Amino acid sequence: MNMIKTDILIIGAGPTGLFTVFEAGLLKLKCHLIDALPQPGGQCSEIYPKKPIYDIPAFPEVLAGDLVSNLMKQIEPFQPGFTLGERAQTIEKLEDDTFIVTTNKGTKHHAPVVAIAGGLGSFEPRKPPITGIANYEDNGVEYIIRDPELYRDKDVIIAGGGDSALDWSIFLTDVAKSVTLVHRRNEFRGALDSVEKVQELKNEGKIELITPADVVDVIGEGNVKGVSIKRGAEVFNKACDHFIPLFGLAPKLGPIADWGLEIEKNAIVVNNSLDYQTNIPGIYAIGDVNTYPGKLKLILCGFHEATLMCQSAYQRIFPEKRYVMKYTTVGGVEGFDGTKKEAPKAVVKAIT
Amino acid sequence: MNMIKTDILIIGAGPTGLFTVFEAGLLKLKCHLIDALPQPGGQCSEIYPKKPIYDIPAFPEVLAGDLVSNLMKQIEPFQPGFTLGERAQTIEKLEDDTFIVTTNKGTKHHAPVVAIAGGLGSFEPRKPPITGIANYEDNGVEYIIRDPELYRDKDVIIAGGGDSALDWSIFLTDVAKSVTLVHRRNEFRGALDSVEKVQELKNEGKIELITPADVVDVIGEGNVKGVSIKRGAEVFNKACDHFIPLFGLAPKLGPIADWGLEIEKNAIVVNNSLDYQTNIPGIYAIGDVNTYPGKLKLILCGFHEATLMCQSAYQRIFPEKRYVMKYTTVGGVEGFDGTKKEAPKAVVKAIT
Repeated sequence: MNMIKTDILIIGAGPTGLFTVFEAGLLKLKCHLIDALPQPGGQCSEIYPKKPIYDIPAFPEVLAGDLVSNLMKQIEPFQPGFTLGERAQTIEKLEDDTFIVTTNKGTKHHAPVVAIAGGLGSFEPRKPPITGIANYEDNGVEYIIRDPELYRDKDVIIAGGGDSALDWSIFLTDVAKSVTLVHRRNEFRGALDSVEKVQELKNEGKIELITPADVVDVIGEGNVKGVSIKRGAEVFNKACDHFIPLFGLAPKLGPIADWGLEIEKNAIVVNNSLDYQTNIPGIYAIGDVNTYPGKLKLILCGFHEATLMCQSAYQRIFPEKRYVMKYTTVGGVEGFDGTKKEAPKAVVKAIT
Repeated sequence: MNMIKTDILIIGAGPTGLFTVFEAGLLKLKCHLIDALPQPGGQCSEIYPKKPIYDIPAFPEVLAGDLVSNLMKQIEPFQPGFTLGERAQTIEKLEDDTFIVTTNKGTKHHAPVVAIAGGLGSFEPRKPPITGIANYEDNGVEYIIRDPELYRDKDVIIAGGGDSALDWSIFLTDVAKSVTLVHRRNEFRGALDSVEKVQELKNEGKIELITPADVVDVIGEGNVKGVSIKRGAEVFNKACDHFIPLFGLAPKLGPIADWGLEIEKNAIVVNNSLDYQTNIPGIYAIGDVNTYPGKLKLILCGFHEATLMCQSAYQRIFPEKRYVMKYTTVGGVEGFDGTKKEAPKAVVKAIT
């Protein structure tokens, strides 16, 4: 059985999880991240990449997507591993106090420290109330677009009325054979640009719009062959290869809720705010997923929590060593990839 | 008597103190900052503005000076007040549990909350061991250059062998009538660029270099008229209007140590790490100046501490109100100057 080994296994690749890689790296600890979403960045990438954030220190304004790119660049020297598009499912504590975490797809990870940086939980798609739709999942019904190439030269029906439905409809006109957008209202809610672009593509015949209407059934044996659409009193079938309901994502703590951790109002209780350890030694909870008196669910607080957590993790992994903090201004940053960044050194030189 | 009034009086205008203005501003609290240095930014501006910092989240690299500029830009909408070049000297608690803080120059500040963001303390210049030099302070002897215009068309003697002595010698060649640099060694320690520039200016006759030598006395009645310089066995006098010993700055907790706060190893003990309040209710300590179990003296930790502190300050100032946190991505940032920044709103629009 293939087993991924690392020093700190981070569950959740949002900003807090990503920054953990940096702070761990300064302590020479390696990290691997698991995330249910297909790319790093958590909510910032999946839900609001184009939204400005104003309260990241020293950024008067930064787009959520840029925040993630910056963090990815900052952690690059520490070569983090990623298991993406899989959800951490079970955890097992071994006799030597290390952990094995297995995903819903069976990927196993082994580490002495687990840091849960799960944000509000793993984002699960809201599904339409269609009987038997689960049978078609990954056979033509997808709730999240992981790889647009899947839709090349296919007939695609998207349902939804928000940014996600608008933006993917626009994007897929260049990829799919045909794009149909079904929405239960005539009005769409999203960025003005996106709404106007869909209007334009509709006018050009590149997007077929069916509103106000609902997809009420999926047709096909094994694979999707089409859907049933209800508009007013009329119900009709429409052929397609893929049906993509984009009704938003809702966070759920998910399987982590069953790991024996103390939970309070959908958040993991940490024993104190000094190292953010949970009731299970060796498992930490940092960022929006944890709770303690005075907790604020802010990205900048996650950064601080990750930093203190790494110190505690270091002590757990190397109980006999004493780490002496070096400032990056003085010691620079030494990557696992052989790179070294440091301030230009002062010279000592005679003037004659 | 003139009295500066504010909601949160911040002592120390380093990164932590500056970011406090932003977090307080989101809560509609006004801030005023006191700093002994002549400009905001603390160490980052005074000691290492050109040094790269690598561990500010989402900045793979940022010059300390740029970090300060970014923070100044971020807090601009909240119009902070500044008392610069003055040291917070005494504190008085009034009957209504508010505070009056007076500087060494007698400026008085009145606030219900005091946040000490004093870093390693106020930076005090290292002074040369010259008997009676104190009599000339501000009469021709300066340890920190606050306003270069003071030296216009004057004869200036600088002593020191580090970056500060090198950089100011270079800068003042364009301002002063003459610049003489005295150092006890032939070798200077600083950025290669600076050492080479001084060599060049010396070759051009724009800087007079006296090495290896020490200034051993100051001459003049009331005002500086010159100094005595010892080189080897030789002692000679040299006329000047200003003698500027630049031997570095050493942090000292200073008068704050006498405010009745619990101190441990030159740091202020905070009762817990949840709101960073000291043993005197209403006085908080944030950033490098505080200590608690697990404390790390990192800028990013100061940002977090400032944020949680502001919530507690809000409760102290408005005990009857309950603040509900709004994310800046959702609520935007409303400045005291009438500016408003916010994410572009989604539209609801029919596609026809």
